[in-house]
Amino acid sequence: MLQPIEIEHSYQRIKPYVNNTPIFTSSFLNKCFNCEIFFKAEGFQKIGAFKFRGAINALLSYKEKNGTLPKKIVAFSSGNHAQAIALAGQMLDVSVRIYTPTFSSKVKIQAAESYGAEVIKTESRAVAERLTTQDINNGFYLLHPFNDEDILLGQGTSCYEALQELKNIDAIFATCGGGGWVAGSYLAKEHLSPSSKMFAAEPKDADDAYNSYKSGKIVELPEPSITIADGARSSKVGDITFEYLKKLDDFYVVDEERIIYWTQWLNHVLKIRVEPTSAVTMGAVEQWLSSSKLNNQRILVLLSGGNMDQETEQKVWQKDYLTKQPFLL
Amino acid sequence: MLQPIEIEHSYQRIKPYVNNTPIFTSSFLNKCFNCEIFFKAEGFQKIGAFKFRGAINALLSYKEKNGTLPKKIVAFSSGNHAQAIALAGQMLDVSVRIYTPTFSSKVKIQAAESYGAEVIKTESRAVAERLTTQDINNGFYLLHPFNDEDILLGQGTSCYEALQELKNIDAIFATCGGGGWVAGSYLAKEHLSPSSKMFAAEPKDADDAYNSYKSGKIVELPEPSITIADGARSSKVGDITFEYLKKLDDFYVVDEERIIYWTQWLNHVLKIRVEPTSAVTMGAVEQWLSSSKLNNQRILVLLSGGNMDQETEQKVWQKDYLTKQPFLL
Repeated sequence: MLQPIEIEHSYQRIKPYVNNTPIFTSSFLNKCFNCEIFFKAEGFQKIGAFKFRGAINALLSYKEKNGTLPKKIVAFSSGNHAQAIALAGQMLDVSVRIYTPTFSSKVKIQAAESYGAEVIKTESRAVAERLTTQDINNGFYLLHPFNDEDILLGQGTSCYEALQELKNIDAIFATCGGGGWVAGSYLAKEHLSPSSKMFAAEPKDADDAYNSYKSGKIVELPEPSITIADGARSSKVGDITFEYLKKLDDFYVVDEERIIYWTQWLNHVLKIRVEPTSAVTMGAVEQWLSSSKLNNQRILVLLSGGNMDQETEQKVWQKDYLTKQPFLL
Repeated sequence: MLQPIEIEHSYQRIKPYVNNTPIFTSSFLNKCFNCEIFFKAEGFQKIGAFKFRGAINALLSYKEKNGTLPKKIVAFSSGNHAQAIALAGQMLDVSVRIYTPTFSSKVKIQAAESYGAEVIKTESRAVAERLTTQDINNGFYLLHPFNDEDILLGQGTSCYEALQELKNIDAIFATCGGGGWVAGSYLAKEHLSPSSKMFAAEPKDADDAYNSYKSGKIVELPEPSITIADGARSSKVGDITFEYLKKLDDFYVVDEERIIYWTQWLNHVLKIRVEPTSAVTMGAVEQWLSSSKLNNQRILVLLSGGNMDQETEQKVWQKDYLTKQPFLL
């Protein structure tokens, strides 16, 4: 396993390339929960999500180890990972090929293409995997979206930045997809604030990581999830990331209605664009506070990003949750 | 007419009470327009809109002139003005009564009430006016939403802050409702950057100010507008604000579809919550650039706020404009 100090090395490596994203608070939410909640907003990271941190770290680390950058990279992604490696590739002059499912949102493909990536739509994961294997044989370097030490270390630099700014944090919350973001955040807090608790949140409709955590072995979803939290749809965590997930203080699942509820409320009170994947965390925060009966906690909530296409926005704003005020302690 | 230096006095007066709101840029939009566009985001002002600046300035200025604050204030408002005076009243310990139309959004009433204001729903404007007159006779101080020198000076401090930070601005854009925001911004630029051009934008469906500007006399809408840009629904500008509107470099109207288009795009690229009233400005920016054939301009766009209820969000995200890329020069 990686040493927590590795986060610091990754941070120094990528610092000139990433945005130090701002932290927001809401006096209204603080009053509701009788706590201080700090929101680290990765929507203001390049490409609008934390994923850029991992992509740029993986490329720069590759160069340190091999003396040179890979000439070309390939990845399979429907979303933010595609944009992240497209931009990282453009910045470092590496050509990028992405296989993407036919159902991917136009806006995300548009963004990846605007960074100069070649985007190829494929009908099934099996086809994409076959083509990727061919590419690897032809000299492409495959960049996994989460099950990679350099990727997870890069993702963890967001929590690292936040904990450099904020002291005496009692608990940290992050949403779990494949586990890279949570694993990296865990390492960051072990390095800078080991006494803070670390919790993960997952959509109930994609609860493979939750079940893996609870059972102690990696569980796979029988079929792909269609949760609105599109950054947490992955069917199983990685063997690398799982080693860190095991060490969390607890794990929570949040249902679709509550994810939408918190997406509305975070957009409303923070006045920033918060994607459903980020809002999953607040469902966990309220469960933790409610079951532990704690208050006066200093809580760090890691918000994954602010990328929503029109279809997602439409789903988020179908019903009115803003007139139903948040949970009051 | 007020002297431009008055803006500075107002700014010094309210500085301890207001947020110095951040300025955002989008490299994507800058590339589209071949310009540098700076967005002053009043969504991060207290109550989520610039309106708080005017309300707090009016109360503090009243105290300077009269030696004491008014004991109680009354206003008629369906929206942000209500929240603004409710919070200003709470901060200065002045009781606040607001008459609001029955169609007002629950979220806005909720907010005004959470700041301790008494909110009374009235069936018609006529009823509200009769009750307001009674209140004035009973010692309430009436605070007009825009046709008031202290209100417009307060609103202008947003442009003042921006122009202290940004030099060599070629053009400034703001949305016109009753004219307080535009009038105050005009004074700010006359004080700090007189060579900058100042433009106003208005929804085509509420084009009273545009017609007033073009004809040189105040024109009233035959009936109240239902434009999605709810901060610009006022039926006519004030006699005080109109004196400043006359001096603008030009005035543009923007149709509903384009307002929604730009609401989607500003939310998408800036990653902050931008209300339709704010997005009207971008319709004007593209008209100005397109007709003048200018590029390489440094443009300041004043964004009024980030308050949207669920119904507005639902209307904004009905169609997909994010796959139709912005106007390219």
